[in-house]
Amino acid sequence: MILAGGAGTRFWPAGRRARPKQLLPIASKQSMLVETLERCAELAPPENTFVITNEIQVEATRQQAPQLPAANVVAEPSMRNTAAAIGAAAVLVEARDPEGVMIVLPADHSIRPREDFVRCYRAAAARAASNDVLLTVGIRPTGPATGYGYIEGGDKLSEVDGHAVHQVKSFKEKPDAKTAAEFIATGSYFWNAGTFVWRASVLRHAFAQHLPGHAKVLDEIADQLRGGAKLSEDVYGKFENVPIDIGVMEKADNVEVIPASFQWDDVGSWLAIDRLNPRDEEGNVVRGTHVGIDTSNCIVFSKDHVVATVGVSDLIIVHTPDATLICPKSHAEDVKKIVAELKARGLDQHT
Amino acid sequence: MILAGGAGTRFWPAGRRARPKQLLPIASKQSMLVETLERCAELAPPENTFVITNEIQVEATRQQAPQLPAANVVAEPSMRNTAAAIGAAAVLVEARDPEGVMIVLPADHSIRPREDFVRCYRAAAARAASNDVLLTVGIRPTGPATGYGYIEGGDKLSEVDGHAVHQVKSFKEKPDAKTAAEFIATGSYFWNAGTFVWRASVLRHAFAQHLPGHAKVLDEIADQLRGGAKLSEDVYGKFENVPIDIGVMEKADNVEVIPASFQWDDVGSWLAIDRLNPRDEEGNVVRGTHVGIDTSNCIVFSKDHVVATVGVSDLIIVHTPDATLICPKSHAEDVKKIVAELKARGLDQHT
Repeated sequence: MILAGGAGTRFWPAGRRARPKQLLPIASKQSMLVETLERCAELAPPENTFVITNEIQVEATRQQAPQLPAANVVAEPSMRNTAAAIGAAAVLVEARDPEGVMIVLPADHSIRPREDFVRCYRAAAARAASNDVLLTVGIRPTGPATGYGYIEGGDKLSEVDGHAVHQVKSFKEKPDAKTAAEFIATGSYFWNAGTFVWRASVLRHAFAQHLPGHAKVLDEIADQLRGGAKLSEDVYGKFENVPIDIGVMEKADNVEVIPASFQWDDVGSWLAIDRLNPRDEEGNVVRGTHVGIDTSNCIVFSKDHVVATVGVSDLIIVHTPDATLICPKSHAEDVKKIVAELKARGLDQHT
Repeated sequence: MILAGGAGTRFWPAGRRARPKQLLPIASKQSMLVETLERCAELAPPENTFVITNEIQVEATRQQAPQLPAANVVAEPSMRNTAAAIGAAAVLVEARDPEGVMIVLPADHSIRPREDFVRCYRAAAARAASNDVLLTVGIRPTGPATGYGYIEGGDKLSEVDGHAVHQVKSFKEKPDAKTAAEFIATGSYFWNAGTFVWRASVLRHAFAQHLPGHAKVLDEIADQLRGGAKLSEDVYGKFENVPIDIGVMEKADNVEVIPASFQWDDVGSWLAIDRLNPRDEEGNVVRGTHVGIDTSNCIVFSKDHVVATVGVSDLIIVHTPDATLICPKSHAEDVKKIVAELKARGLDQHT
């Protein structure tokens, strides 16, 4: 179950409402969705691989996932947050096999190397297949980041193919800097990357216990799907807007975490380009035609268009047919302000 | 006689080989050639106004000068510097009136206000009409610039409609900084803006005295034109490559200078945009759609394309359909290096 939504604001102007991060060749020369599908091909065959997206992105998503049955690329009728999307996904799995193991992954994370990813999730799936638990794969923090939620790990319960399985004591929302530093100091906290492994039936049971409102809507959806209908707004729209972390994971007492054995990057802004792509001799990461004189440590994205720079450094420069961004790396987080400003000015066609 | 050539490298990517500075709306929202023609309309009727350009620019030049007879936009068969171009222009004038007064002006200078320009050149024309002299209009230096040639003024010889006429003691090539400062200190030096006023017959006489090789080619051209032919490369190509300042003005002893009574700017690089155009509240000069957040003192040129900036200042950003420039103002002089690099890479189509 690949969750592929997103607003496309942090990677504007390459990212747009109808073409967000996961559909772009940002972390490598392939789109992140294509990379994710290639990784997942070693975990499940195409007919058991689903992509959950939204109406505006569904066509572009199907184009990038030609190996999947078209029906496996599912558009949410409306945005109702992760509890709804993942719950609906569980219904899809249950319809095929109530004891089927689900792996839930975002489409827009960069993960390397692939072998470690595959081994890690196979271990998690093995654990979930034979235990009534809600598993998450936690990322070992590389610093006291304030941009992620944290998972507090507890006792080690087991080990599967060299992967430790820990009890989860609590989920923490994005902390302030001081709290993040305290988390890191304990050595037992992980970043919450929003990836989960469980049997569909175990998740449905957790919904019944902790989110009965959702559970009721999920029953309706199961009826709809048995009748051959698709997800519809009149039912889907009944979901409350709740993230699965808060709605289910924080409340459940059968949650476990496996520390990730792979390198992970959430590709949160244009700065990720620097971390994930090779640089040239001047430290520039270039896609397209760039003529640079005294130009260093820049990110230049273009296509069939000459971007020429003289005497600049540490800039993000992104050219697209209708819009160009120029932004110092230090302001990468402010790119979404541009999108807000475009909307405020009635220039939505460029967002 | 408006001299309109130029390589278009300093204003790349707006400026191109076939569309150099004078054809662009740089100093205002009109092209510099259109502004020049409007200024000159008060000095001479269209049938007596000529534009000397080159083959690659002649069509675009005619399009911007629809009020002139097409034959008055003349393409030099090849580049042979200003002595050749101005000499050939004198032959054109002589064919109509041997005692006709010629005013020679570049097409790519910004001059304000127009009234002062008109009064100044009328005074110069009156002086030239009744005296066998080679007049130049000199610009009062605003600082010890090293980018211009200088004219050393001598005794005041006359005054015409409030405009002093000085003897010229010498022409000086572009000086070093120390020499420029010495020039300025004397108070009697002017910048050489390459504008001249004289009777065609007086100039032809000066050619005969000081550039006899040119004089001979000019005789051949006069024969060609009398026969109804156009300027041709087989004759024009015989000219040596000599600027008129060095070939004629420095050698002649009947040279006079009238100090300009108008504001003058040679629009030498993108920095001129700042001096000549109004800025917005953040100090930006913008043409086109610009979405700027924390953006100040930038020059943004675009058209039907969104240029978005966050957290930048003092940048020159120019978007054209096939190429975009990003360059700090401090590197404006290096823009021509980009053009050289494009040529070196075989990307001439973008120059």
